[in-house]
Amino acid sequence: MKRDKPKYKQIIDAAVIAIAENGYHQAQVSKIAKQAGVADGTIYLYFKNKEDILISVFREKMGVFVENLREIIDNGESSSEKLSQMIDNHFNVLANDRHLATVTQLELRQSNKDLRLKINSILKEYLKLLDEILVEGMLKGEFNSTMDVRIARQMVFGTIDETITTWVMNEFRYDLIETAPKVRQLLLNGLKG
Amino acid sequence: MKRDKPKYKQIIDAAVIAIAENGYHQAQVSKIAKQAGVADGTIYLYFKNKEDILISVFREKMGVFVENLREIIDNGESSSEKLSQMIDNHFNVLANDRHLATVTQLELRQSNKDLRLKINSILKEYLKLLDEILVEGMLKGEFNSTMDVRIARQMVFGTIDETITTWVMNEFRYDLIETAPKVRQLLLNGLKG
Ligand SMILES: CCCCCCCCCCCCCCCCCC(=O)SCCNC(=O)CCNC(=O)[C@H](O)C(C)(C)COP(=O)(O)OP(=O)(O)OC[C@H]1O[C@@H](n2cnc3c(N)ncnc32)[C@H](O)[C@@H]1OP(=O)(O)O
Ligand SMILES: CCCCCCCCCCCCCCCCCC(=O)SCCNC(=O)CCNC(=O)[C@H](O)C(C)(C)COP(=O)(O)OP(=O)(O)OC[C@H]1O[C@@H](n2cnc3c(N)ncnc32)[C@H](O)[C@@H]1OP(=O)(O)O
Repeated sequence: MKRDKPKYKQIIDAAVIAIAENGYHQAQVSKIAKQAGVADGTIYLYFKNKEDILISVFREKMGVFVENLREIIDNGESSSEKLSQMIDNHFNVLANDRHLATVTQLELRQSNKDLRLKINSILKEYLKLLDEILVEGMLKGEFNSTMDVRIARQMVFGTIDETITTWVMNEFRYDLIETAPKVRQLLLNGLKG
Repeated sequence: MKRDKPKYKQIIDAAVIAIAENGYHQAQVSKIAKQAGVADGTIYLYFKNKEDILISVFREKMGVFVENLREIIDNGESSSEKLSQMIDNHFNVLANDRHLATVTQLELRQSNKDLRLKINSILKEYLKLLDEILVEGMLKGEFNSTMDVRIARQMVFGTIDETITTWVMNEFRYDLIETAPKVRQLLLNGLKG
């Protein structure tokens, strides 16, 4: 597997930085190569083109994230607790990596249809886990059992997403982690019966 | 005022269609001119460049929208009612104009810093009205008086925004208006004490 080769992860991490600092459209493959400390040609051993790099970055990072979440969910007690942990995780990962936050909140929002469909099919993995927590909570009576799970999912993800985009647009000037408990409280309130 | 000249509005409306159908980056000024039925040179009597057109589209449409909302708010009864009307309005405007919805949900999300700051400063007008409703509700005791109004605003806007983006990404396959009451209910629940 290409993904197991040593330089693969090195290029992925360099791409996050190069894309965050230059913007996706101005982050030429040569800039990514330079950031990774590899020759331009090496990039093409691992990736077809820049679009493939962007999608691979998201798939790779999301893969690790979803794996961690899977464990949290399997070991969690109540549905509210699982949801809280999911929210905290999301804030923690991005609060601790501003390059990643710039990429997820600004650079992954491409309007090119094909590219966007690929990005959103990766996002779907995350949203499926969220749906799982919401449905469990509805069945257990922890959450409003009559709500539309799609709209509830859109509220939870939309709120987290908007909070983080605002923090990025405000140039990281405040502590994102401190907002997590407030976000949790408002959302859990909304979901309750 | 340039904005009062007859062709100004004609170009604005044509730009919404050209940008929605081609994407912002592929919507050359000549395409917008063709859609508007004017000569290329005419566009430059009204706008500096394509960026100026995009920003003017948003400013123009937002201006009308905010004016209507101002009236709704001044005449509304309770804060919950005002918020409900604001949400309904947002859904109605975009449900009735798919070109506009494509522009607001996909094409206005530019990662270019300068352009984005200009777009967001127009969005601010809308969010200030939202804050006004939220603060009034907190003072009156209709909404949780201890919540952080910025996070509450981000929940309301983020939920509406995500719901509409999902509808656009699902190619308008369901009735957006039908989702409005569900969105309202979840949000009002979240905001209550
Ligand atoms: C074709 C047009 C059709 C229109 C027709 C109408 C249809 C309906 C409407 C359609 C909507 C369309 C949406 C399209 C928008 C496109 C743009 C997006 O992508 S939107 C989706 C993505 N979303 C975005 O892109 C929105 C991103 N947000 C923003 O850019 C800004 O929030 C703002 C410009 C919107 C407001 O700015 P501002 O008024 O400054 O208010 P802030 O609260 O941000 O900051 C105030 C101060 O508080 C600080 N602070 C804040 N929070 C916290 C906290 N939790 N803890 C501690 N501190 C916090 C902050 O640092 C600042 O202090 P300082 O640092 O200056 O001292
Ligand atoms: C660098 C990476 C770092 C990662 C590290 C990890 C860090 C934390 C995570 C970071 C998150 C990063 C976010 C970055 C994302 C970038 C993309 C965005 O812009 S996100 C921000 C903007 N947001 C987006 O771009 C997300 C837009 N959403 C989507 O694209 C899709 O919802 C989906 C692909 C996400 C899921 O798709 P799917 O699984 O298909 O689920 P659906 O529910 O959509 O549809 C199921 C069926 O139900 C129908 N239906 C739905 N609702 C309603 C309703 N209310 N009434 C009636 N019907 C409804 C619908 O038509 C469909 O039926 P049919 O028509 O097929 O028969």
